[in-house]
Amino acid sequence: MADNDLMEKLVSLSKRRGYVFQSSEIYGGTGSVWDYGPLGVELKRNVKDAWWRAMVHERDDIEGLDAAILMHPKVWEASGHVENFTDPLVECRNCHRRFRVDILLAETGAAEMEAARCPSCGKTGEWTEPRSFNLMFKTFMGPAEDSANVVYLRPETAQGIYVNFLNVQQSARQKIPFGIAQIGKAFRNEITPGNFTFRTREFEQMEMQFFVKPGSDEAFFEQWREARFKWHTDVLGLSPDRLRYHPHEKLAHYASAAGDVEFYFGGTIGDGGWGEIEGIHNRTDFDLKRHQEYSGKRLEYIDPAAGERYIPYIIETSVGADRATLAVLANAYREDVVDGETRVVLSIKPSLAPLKCGVFPLVKKDGMPDRATQIHEDLRRRGIPSFYDEAGAIGRRYRRQDEAGTPFCITVDGETMEQGTVTIRDRDTMEQSRIAQDQIPAFLAERLA
Amino acid sequence: MADNDLMEKLVSLSKRRGYVFQSSEIYGGTGSVWDYGPLGVELKRNVKDAWWRAMVHERDDIEGLDAAILMHPKVWEASGHVENFTDPLVECRNCHRRFRVDILLAETGAAEMEAARCPSCGKTGEWTEPRSFNLMFKTFMGPAEDSANVVYLRPETAQGIYVNFLNVQQSARQKIPFGIAQIGKAFRNEITPGNFTFRTREFEQMEMQFFVKPGSDEAFFEQWREARFKWHTDVLGLSPDRLRYHPHEKLAHYASAAGDVEFYFGGTIGDGGWGEIEGIHNRTDFDLKRHQEYSGKRLEYIDPAAGERYIPYIIETSVGADRATLAVLANAYREDVVDGETRVVLSIKPSLAPLKCGVFPLVKKDGMPDRATQIHEDLRRRGIPSFYDEAGAIGRRYRRQDEAGTPFCITVDGETMEQGTVTIRDRDTMEQSRIAQDQIPAFLAERLA
Repeated sequence: MADNDLMEKLVSLSKRRGYVFQSSEIYGGTGSVWDYGPLGVELKRNVKDAWWRAMVHERDDIEGLDAAILMHPKVWEASGHVENFTDPLVECRNCHRRFRVDILLAETGAAEMEAARCPSCGKTGEWTEPRSFNLMFKTFMGPAEDSANVVYLRPETAQGIYVNFLNVQQSARQKIPFGIAQIGKAFRNEITPGNFTFRTREFEQMEMQFFVKPGSDEAFFEQWREARFKWHTDVLGLSPDRLRYHPHEKLAHYASAAGDVEFYFGGTIGDGGWGEIEGIHNRTDFDLKRHQEYSGKRLEYIDPAAGERYIPYIIETSVGADRATLAVLANAYREDVVDGETRVVLSIKPSLAPLKCGVFPLVKKDGMPDRATQIHEDLRRRGIPSFYDEAGAIGRRYRRQDEAGTPFCITVDGETMEQGTVTIRDRDTMEQSRIAQDQIPAFLAERLA
Repeated sequence: MADNDLMEKLVSLSKRRGYVFQSSEIYGGTGSVWDYGPLGVELKRNVKDAWWRAMVHERDDIEGLDAAILMHPKVWEASGHVENFTDPLVECRNCHRRFRVDILLAETGAAEMEAARCPSCGKTGEWTEPRSFNLMFKTFMGPAEDSANVVYLRPETAQGIYVNFLNVQQSARQKIPFGIAQIGKAFRNEITPGNFTFRTREFEQMEMQFFVKPGSDEAFFEQWREARFKWHTDVLGLSPDRLRYHPHEKLAHYASAAGDVEFYFGGTIGDGGWGEIEGIHNRTDFDLKRHQEYSGKRLEYIDPAAGERYIPYIIETSVGADRATLAVLANAYREDVVDGETRVVLSIKPSLAPLKCGVFPLVKKDGMPDRATQIHEDLRRRGIPSFYDEAGAIGRRYRRQDEAGTPFCITVDGETMEQGTVTIRDRDTMEQSRIAQDQIPAFLAERLA
């Protein structure tokens, strides 16, 4: 399949099966904002829960946090976002459409602005001087719309962690090294978003900030780089040949080392199809120092045992929850040809799949629907998400669950009624095994972990 | 304890134990916005997961959704929010501070504006004419700040469900009656927020919209009213004597029946201390009809069996996730006097408690820390959140877990090393039982469900 087709196919499958819908679709959509449907919300929950488990629940040295989206505006002065979080924009004097300078030059192939042709009206070189456009969404808190009341929608969750550093450390009685983890929405007023849920104006981050003693930061950076890379194969099930680590050549003003975990989406995403799904950064003591300076509050860690105090260094790991979810979908998408027909399959790792099991009566008689319903309800009581379906030919029911990414389908047939056995079909191999009905929970438990 | 003290005590306990911090506290705070700390984020997750389990995972007739915060601006014209979601504001001509008319009159006790004294500068009757202030936060999408690019931060999650009604129904192949459930942030630019996390400008909703055939709506309203009221005692563990159902006398423009589940917080919250934690509304076909009119898209349900099509009625159940979490905290707060000392306890229902278990070595020698660590790590492997603590006197360690709401504390002592038994202390009764170390998981499993 050509790379360029994959995103289109995912958009269409996602709508058909209820993974992702265009936001406000009945009104023609909202620019690059998407809604997660019944299966999408479960997939994304499973991705986020897997991250939270690995980062918070399975460790003693990382605490969770859920800071608000609306923060004090000084936070964004201290962080450098008010000054630096900008793109250079130009406007066409003829049609008044605006473009990002770098993207305009890349797309038109022009070497300089004078030679650049407006993609909207076709005039050449009619551009205003570039001006800085800040990517933070701004709004007003309280009843007056003046500059005193400007607040921003956070463009990253990290700053909520920095300003709470001492609150968390002291209330949880943590000692350095320790981390703070957070999952939450962030917003960026991107001029040229696109590629489905890859670059959107509203997105969700899974960020962990690890506070370490200066001097130990390089070793912790390496440790986290390795641990996080491994998570994408071991927990998300992404193919190793579609993952790479890409160190940054040009570092942001706050970082002394940085790199991205990239996934091969194909098409026009990122660098030749390779797009960032997680960034790992050594942010030094830049952020805490700046917040100390801007707030006038000391943000030092006091080590009572060693009798010293210092501003810790921070190693950041930052996953895009929507991108990780999109990578799981892109990684899972397959087309087989079976009996001359194309079969679309989402081979999602069973632990992440929204539905674990389809349960079907072979036919709508002879007590089969009742027995299948009983199996379905038993699975639900055990916390195994299952889907009961009696509509249409059995082959079509299998295909629908293949597209939905459901790893197993259980069919109740004549032998079930006579001998108490059911068939279990594997999504990926399409092989069917016959097992005793009372063995279903054990069979699934073994394969869903 | 006087009612008025409870909120203050909760604010202070929440900061001390890491439940809730003031947002951007080092910058003096953001107006009525709060951050959840390590224990708070787990408590709120448990509340939200319990709701999702009851509303989505345990039922076949409700689908999940996660719609974006940023929606098409026409959504809010159709919903009536642009026109009606307003408060009347006046400004003091002397000091230029603004106030909500109804609250100003109530607080000053004045019968009319002419007699109202400005709470800020003290001038009397120097008020501008009241004007409508819209409570939606507005921002601009794209690079130009003009009215063509205005978007709003959603003031309720419900509309994301309505505009996706057919996408969900068709992709999930649901038949009426069925529901769509969603958890997500919403924003209201309240003029006078307050009372800790009770009324905030940024908050999280857990909303379920149940689509029914017109004519069956009254029966479904009653069904949901009962089911939802019961949830607050059975699942959240709120005391029945602090819960009441309060039917609305004055109905909103979209509703034919409505009422609130109220919890007794005390103090200045709501009506004599009774504050809404969930609303149940019969919204009729108002919302879908309006979206059909404004979008020009048909939003009818087609019943193939009956051969009919209609716009469904909607029964809405809408919980404030932050208020429900605050109710759990307020319900749980106790002060006992033990040996002449005040003991502060959060008697949170064990299934909702952030930590299930403290694990302590009685003393830091004789192999006790190793054995306690082993128990702690075994619990974590089983997915039971536990906290290892060896710092300070055993009595102080118990008290810290009492304040944190941890239902059980396991202590490793001399007998553990000799006979393999531990003590388990119950948070609420302070009674200690002695059980075999290998019985710990079974003991907890029975009591944490």
